[in-house]
Amino acid sequence: MSEEYKVLLSEKEMPTRWYNIQADMPHLPPPPLHPATKQPIGPEDLAAIFPMGLIEQEMSRERWIDIPGEVLDVYRLWRPTPLYRARRLEKALETPAAIYYKYEGVSPAGSHKPNTAVAQAYYNKIAGIKRLTTETGAGQWGSALSLACSFFGLECTVYMVRVSYEQKPYRRSLMEAYGASVIPSPSSRTAAGREILARDPDCLGSLGIAISEAVEDAAARPDTNYSLGSVLNHVCLHQTIVGLEAKEQFAKANTYPDVVIGCVGGGSNFSGLVFPFLQDKFNGRKVRAVAVEPTACPTLTRGRLAYDFGDTVGLTPLLHMYTLGHNFMPPGIHAGGLRYHGLAPLLCQLYRDGYVEAVAVAQTDIFAAAVLFARQEGILPAPESAHAIKVAIDEALACRESGEKKVILFGLSGHGHFDLSAYDAYLAGRLEDVAYSEEELARSLATLP
Amino acid sequence: MSEEYKVLLSEKEMPTRWYNIQADMPHLPPPPLHPATKQPIGPEDLAAIFPMGLIEQEMSRERWIDIPGEVLDVYRLWRPTPLYRARRLEKALETPAAIYYKYEGVSPAGSHKPNTAVAQAYYNKIAGIKRLTTETGAGQWGSALSLACSFFGLECTVYMVRVSYEQKPYRRSLMEAYGASVIPSPSSRTAAGREILARDPDCLGSLGIAISEAVEDAAARPDTNYSLGSVLNHVCLHQTIVGLEAKEQFAKANTYPDVVIGCVGGGSNFSGLVFPFLQDKFNGRKVRAVAVEPTACPTLTRGRLAYDFGDTVGLTPLLHMYTLGHNFMPPGIHAGGLRYHGLAPLLCQLYRDGYVEAVAVAQTDIFAAAVLFARQEGILPAPESAHAIKVAIDEALACRESGEKKVILFGLSGHGHFDLSAYDAYLAGRLEDVAYSEEELARSLATLP
Repeated sequence: MSEEYKVLLSEKEMPTRWYNIQADMPHLPPPPLHPATKQPIGPEDLAAIFPMGLIEQEMSRERWIDIPGEVLDVYRLWRPTPLYRARRLEKALETPAAIYYKYEGVSPAGSHKPNTAVAQAYYNKIAGIKRLTTETGAGQWGSALSLACSFFGLECTVYMVRVSYEQKPYRRSLMEAYGASVIPSPSSRTAAGREILARDPDCLGSLGIAISEAVEDAAARPDTNYSLGSVLNHVCLHQTIVGLEAKEQFAKANTYPDVVIGCVGGGSNFSGLVFPFLQDKFNGRKVRAVAVEPTACPTLTRGRLAYDFGDTVGLTPLLHMYTLGHNFMPPGIHAGGLRYHGLAPLLCQLYRDGYVEAVAVAQTDIFAAAVLFARQEGILPAPESAHAIKVAIDEALACRESGEKKVILFGLSGHGHFDLSAYDAYLAGRLEDVAYSEEELARSLATLP
Repeated sequence: MSEEYKVLLSEKEMPTRWYNIQADMPHLPPPPLHPATKQPIGPEDLAAIFPMGLIEQEMSRERWIDIPGEVLDVYRLWRPTPLYRARRLEKALETPAAIYYKYEGVSPAGSHKPNTAVAQAYYNKIAGIKRLTTETGAGQWGSALSLACSFFGLECTVYMVRVSYEQKPYRRSLMEAYGASVIPSPSSRTAAGREILARDPDCLGSLGIAISEAVEDAAARPDTNYSLGSVLNHVCLHQTIVGLEAKEQFAKANTYPDVVIGCVGGGSNFSGLVFPFLQDKFNGRKVRAVAVEPTACPTLTRGRLAYDFGDTVGLTPLLHMYTLGHNFMPPGIHAGGLRYHGLAPLLCQLYRDGYVEAVAVAQTDIFAAAVLFARQEGILPAPESAHAIKVAIDEALACRESGEKKVILFGLSGHGHFDLSAYDAYLAGRLEDVAYSEEELARSLATLP
């Protein structure tokens, strides 16, 4: 029998603290600004839609933050997640590199998203909140929050981008099975939605619009808060359980990655995997961190570092981030989770300061990588995760040329069971590399607030 | 922090032998008969469509059969699978019982089916076979064989029941992502298919018809064999890895089940989980084994023990089994994997001899149990597996009444990510308890050969 594929941790070995990279960053990003006053926001500005437990985490400079026992109890339903050695993929690529992947698809929602959904539901629950609202595009985040709310007995209302609501009825059914209400956005339930529908009754919706609706809904009801699945500091914080486990697992396997690769949409998946390794990098350890984005929505590689809104209508605070402009409408690629104009401010600062590299890859290339991976390793990846696979394969092929025995780690953030129409299109040769329009990008960047 | 949810085994602790219950059964079932001569079949009769490695296992009386290293290597991609303690479900039910479930949904195909698919692909590969054919209904088995063939470099052709082909395009896409060719059945590629299409050009297909087509295709080409996903002895044998692991895990947890519960379609899922526990039962240990079938297809509770064909057209050997008649067409329940007229002869004999109990449950009840389970434990179960959940919950509720602290084990044979249209129907109140017609059952039983 050959060597093992999986590095496992027991439930007792699961980390009990999140890592807050704000304690160690050489430079912190400029603070969020109030959308009206353009002054730095304080905790009180956020209290209308977030519980104090999360606001404190958003602003904390403490290096380690204890994970509450009730959150650990839920995490342990599927955590620690496995770290895989992709031995079959290595053989197929004939590479001397060692390829590892951290697999978050074992969560009941099928992705890394429950790591923060469970924490957010918990802090809202103990603050006396009865109901959470959120947005979802492809549905990964909405499923995760629905699951978390069912665990903590909260109502959950998900504004789902209308085109996804219609094209992905199964994701909607999954959220409903967990007890959530799912509303196609734009809807007539909010002023933001009504305004957009008045202009364009057939509007297909966008993540930015759905955020506007969910925020407005939450702000209007005292028993209701809003929950965001990425971008914010506390979301990235909760996801560090992924990288902390991976570090434990590498220690068990007696090795350490030369390069850590993750896909970026709002940035929380990448941050969760990478931040614990960056802590070592701050302390002088040599480790590369590579963020992979779609060429169709190239926030880091083509965006501008500036203050911008997180949503379309302009209800959110202004965040200092790489952005394509909050009016940027990315082409309809199948990696819906990566179609976001902005990016986590913490990650943007780290990119600017040279701790993180970025690369953009095209849609047909990521599906080719995904199919190669599935036929070797078995797991069918989410299109989002396939961005990381593509770059990991490229790194491994470069090692074949150079003879280097690099240790490569990538994040397999979720499975692709709800993305099979995209695979169908790819396998039937119907998938194309869709490009954004340069004029539209220029127009969008020109409207930065 | 409360106690652990999961009992895990390392890859090194995975069993390396399958358990062959034929060595220990008080009575073996009568042998399969040749469909034409009605004489017991010999190895040579099966050699046209099966490799000798599998034929030997089909007829073996050896108690333990070594799992080949190449098969273990693939198993270890996802095995050993977790044994879960359903602590949240127990609390919700307020039961003193301890509920455990063995979760096979962690396989890349999402069910227990790859346990035999991988073994079958391997034995065909070493016999020099280049291509496998099979049938699939809901798609669990077709996905598993597609996956296994991609691991061993075999071509795979799947005859998929036409109504599922059209209603479940995502299952088809998954098989194609693994490199398989998927053909809606009945098709014009086989005499069996052409004959049925000539009579009924709009025929929606059935598992029995698809088996006929796959067998005919395999018999016609020397480089091609046929692969069956359940019913046969060697299939049940391969699935015993599930129960063997579970026994190791119960030993680790320092406990033992009072009752083991599984759903039955063709019987391999149930056999795989239960046979290793029946070995103890033969040796005097007290353990109940409960087979759960749909009221819409009640093979054990309403069928007749007799010789019958495994397929519709009558190409297969005659198997001695409980059967509803090979012409029985079960109503269109959503647990497609349980819509089969017959059942594994080994399991039928054990039922007849009193080692196994059987119970039939209705469709709306199993979905209610599935949703309750998902909201407590997170995992959305396959409708097939939900049959076992329903009976496990009933057992736990009986313990609440009696105060007994029973240890309950059920098999969670797969996840329900490809069954969300069924959940959608259930949650929307559109799902009904469909009944078979008593006249049709009588007619079908009257045609037993």
